[in-house]
Amino acid sequence: MAHISILGTGTMGSVIASIAQAGDNTVELLGSNDTATPVTGDVVVLAVPYAALAGIASTRGAELAGKVVVDVTNPVDFATFDSLLVPADGSAAAEVAAALPDSRVLKAFNTTFGATLASGTVGGQQPTTVLIAGDDADAKAQLAAIVTAGGLRAVDAGSLRRARELEALGFLQLTLAATEKVSWTAGFAVVA
Amino acid sequence: MAHISILGTGTMGSVIASIAQAGDNTVELLGSNDTATPVTGDVVVLAVPYAALAGIASTRGAELAGKVVVDVTNPVDFATFDSLLVPADGSAAAEVAAALPDSRVLKAFNTTFGATLASGTVGGQQPTTVLIAGDDADAKAQLAAIVTAGGLRAVDAGSLRRARELEALGFLQLTLAATEKVSWTAGFAVVA
Repeated sequence: MAHISILGTGTMGSVIASIAQAGDNTVELLGSNDTATPVTGDVVVLAVPYAALAGIASTRGAELAGKVVVDVTNPVDFATFDSLLVPADGSAAAEVAAALPDSRVLKAFNTTFGATLASGTVGGQQPTTVLIAGDDADAKAQLAAIVTAGGLRAVDAGSLRRARELEALGFLQLTLAATEKVSWTAGFAVVA
Repeated sequence: MAHISILGTGTMGSVIASIAQAGDNTVELLGSNDTATPVTGDVVVLAVPYAALAGIASTRGAELAGKVVVDVTNPVDFATFDSLLVPADGSAAAEVAAALPDSRVLKAFNTTFGATLASGTVGGQQPTTVLIAGDDADAKAQLAAIVTAGGLRAVDAGSLRRARELEALGFLQLTLAATEKVSWTAGFAVVA
């Protein structure tokens, strides 16, 4: 299948690695101490906090050229928990795309809590759906194939401009979980 | 229970009227020709397109003072279907609140397709949840009581600032339905 590099060994990095491995892909998992290790995947998931994106783009930009790069972040201002840290008409994914003009940048995995990616269900009641936005149809199809081979559903959410709405959804879902309106194992399900 | 005025006799106005009536509230349903009829409800649902909000605020502003006013709109630019017509850091609800400073403005019903309000389910698989944002806790509780008495679930989605995220969610859901990723009888479900 594909060779996938995942930058970030936290919850999201680990669970996305498991999904990719379930689909018989090869996976390279790199932590923050692996800055000297080259990224070899055709698909690269940046499973890091929003604040780490700019540094990765600046140090690994040349290396990521030509690759499918997946931004999973929710750029929430956790100091106030009342807004995002990106321009209101933009998105973290748009910033990554601007910083990596030679990569094919996708937004994905930011609307699914780690627990729903690990269990494959939203609250045990609905299948987990990964919403994928991006401007490169082939790149979206590649990531969708990885997601579905890993046992989850994938839905094309449109162009990379829709990352603004995906990040709004991710933020809203975080506020609902933080205020105990939904569980961290549940949240928004996409019912077809 | 409550006396509710609904401005707008289209799909959303009709279905919200049914929900309110199911809960033994009294309902006044006013169409676009009823401009001379005073609004008598304690809770007023503006079930009109986004473009009609400014006119209602300007002609009925004094009448709506002190009342709970519910904005249900998705201010989508349907010419491009690629962005909203409101400032990126704002919302239609914020505009209504600015135009009606003496009303208690809520955002609700914009993340639930009419069919899911009518059936009470998202695609027959999950209960329909009405997300309600606003700055007045009593107003939110009043609307939540109407929604739950009508057989649906209601969830407090936070302050009126969250209307930005609710409108992003509503917009994203419309794009998913328009591209046949979800049905007009389904969409996003809130799984607790």
